[in-house]
Amino acid sequence: MHPVVNHVTPLDSHTGALTLRYIDTLTKPPGSLGQLETLAVTLSEITGECKPIITPPAIIVFAADHGIAEEGVSAFPQEVTAQMVANFVRGGAAINVFARQIGAQVEVVDVGVASHLAMPSITDAKVRAGTANMVLEDAMSRDEALAALQVGGEAVERAVQAGAKCIIVGEMGIANTTASSAMLAALTGKPVAQLVGAGTGISSVQQAHKVAVIERALSARQANIEDPIEVLSKLGGLEIAAMAGAYLATAANRLPAIVDGFIATVAALTACRLCPAVRGYLIFGHRSEEPGHATALEALDATPLLSLGMRLGEGSGAALAFPLLQAAAAMLSEMATFADAGISDNADP
Amino acid sequence: MHPVVNHVTPLDSHTGALTLRYIDTLTKPPGSLGQLETLAVTLSEITGECKPIITPPAIIVFAADHGIAEEGVSAFPQEVTAQMVANFVRGGAAINVFARQIGAQVEVVDVGVASHLAMPSITDAKVRAGTANMVLEDAMSRDEALAALQVGGEAVERAVQAGAKCIIVGEMGIANTTASSAMLAALTGKPVAQLVGAGTGISSVQQAHKVAVIERALSARQANIEDPIEVLSKLGGLEIAAMAGAYLATAANRLPAIVDGFIATVAALTACRLCPAVRGYLIFGHRSEEPGHATALEALDATPLLSLGMRLGEGSGAALAFPLLQAAAAMLSEMATFADAGISDNADP
Repeated sequence: MHPVVNHVTPLDSHTGALTLRYIDTLTKPPGSLGQLETLAVTLSEITGECKPIITPPAIIVFAADHGIAEEGVSAFPQEVTAQMVANFVRGGAAINVFARQIGAQVEVVDVGVASHLAMPSITDAKVRAGTANMVLEDAMSRDEALAALQVGGEAVERAVQAGAKCIIVGEMGIANTTASSAMLAALTGKPVAQLVGAGTGISSVQQAHKVAVIERALSARQANIEDPIEVLSKLGGLEIAAMAGAYLATAANRLPAIVDGFIATVAALTACRLCPAVRGYLIFGHRSEEPGHATALEALDATPLLSLGMRLGEGSGAALAFPLLQAAAAMLSEMATFADAGISDNADP
Repeated sequence: MHPVVNHVTPLDSHTGALTLRYIDTLTKPPGSLGQLETLAVTLSEITGECKPIITPPAIIVFAADHGIAEEGVSAFPQEVTAQMVANFVRGGAAINVFARQIGAQVEVVDVGVASHLAMPSITDAKVRAGTANMVLEDAMSRDEALAALQVGGEAVERAVQAGAKCIIVGEMGIANTTASSAMLAALTGKPVAQLVGAGTGISSVQQAHKVAVIERALSARQANIEDPIEVLSKLGGLEIAAMAGAYLATAANRLPAIVDGFIATVAALTACRLCPAVRGYLIFGHRSEEPGHATALEALDATPLLSLGMRLGEGSGAALAFPLLQAAAAMLSEMATFADAGISDNADP
């Protein structure tokens, strides 16, 4: 078991209750800021502060390759993983643009890209050069899965040391919707066909092929669904393991993690299966178009803040949701109370 | 007819089409940024620019009172309008907090508050000291409605002169959900009971009373539904008229307007009935909990960006949506293309 699992403490419900009462003293009709009020209470429960500070956020993008790509499950060739890593480093990807908007540093971590990346500004934490093809053998060994979890945890510790108050985790890995769909089918028992969608843009014929490939992998691997590390190592990906480790470490640090789309939610589900207390530290940023996302969200009883029909990954949906957390925190720290403002009470509270 | 009505030109569909093509060259799977891509095209059509600039935004809050408040339709007494105006001026309201987050100036315009406001930093453009009780007489005269439209247009012109590139309009007026519901029932022919909700927080018994009051007003006023100015003057509010004027002027300036919740959408519907070309310049920020909002949105064929269960007004939902417009514009101006980044094309486009 991952050592950080024991360091996640329950949410601070006492501070949350104080915040809930305080919100009703602010100059607005009770409940009128809707989910922003719920979010403010959650941030208080997570941080233990009545006026939580969640800036600056940090974005960590984990990149890795997938042996299953050789089965022709993705719209893009495998070399795109390394090419997109280079794009992240140069600041040209969507996640870079959204990171600048919210004042977040981006760390790119190579936890398992197939090719050698000679780029100085990425973190080299390669556990292995991509997973194996899970139709033929386990995607990785149990030790490799644990090492990748550790890579994720260490990245969060670096961000926390650098002052981050909110963690956004993203991913890049051609064919990682295939690995995530396989893991999700194993973890929830749902039919594969219900989980698989267009990914980055495949046709319906290719989708049927993708479903068949995943079903072959599930049947060949026979992962023990009671053991999340086994599911991760037999069917998962190195970046998915790192993301799960990142959520564990974020929770252990009592910081909010904004979960992105489908792949991130499968990683979050894995972290919660390892340690259910992690769930309280997760805020869901965006509802992806990928059909499996609804199943993964349901398994976590989660409702995302945004629903913009996106399916990009990289942490993009989580980064776009960050301003809503910022607004919730600012509501607590900056709004006047009815008493401050000398405003007449609701006649019929 | 309001003079600005003739100055609204159609959207620039040519520039929109160029932007649509450009988006597919950016380093992401085609369509994967969902509504953000649609939004980017809309911003191009509005501004006529392939790389639209939408910062800084300006927020204009119009405040006015409603004679119908004496029928006991609101959870708060009428003096709260003036008290909240003072709160806006001191920077303690939700809209002030959200304005600071997005770098927007807030102008507060008194277009019809019942009491005299001795506050130097608000714009005094009072057309009359609140509307009349529409159960007993027309809310205002036709000339007063036109004057209030003009107040809204002038506020937008000041914001544009000061450099604003995106306009957010908010309101404060105790009982203005009642006036808006009456206008919406007249403009759409929908039953009042389907439109009325809790407003700022009334009980179901009070809601039934509110429905009865609105039905009496509709029956007593017999507004000609083919004449939006008549609907506005007989059943509306001074701030609602000013908001409609603001949308007309924003469209005439070829800038995007982010429409807030229920009251703002009724004002937007009024502006579109006066001048259908305004519709193209409107971006809808937030789906309100107020039941009439769905009807108003449907009448405009509009889908808001956010749905956070809010029902505050003030422009709050529109301000929270602004970062999404900013992200859409930044996507166009900052993301690398596949050619820039030397990334392999989609194998199966």
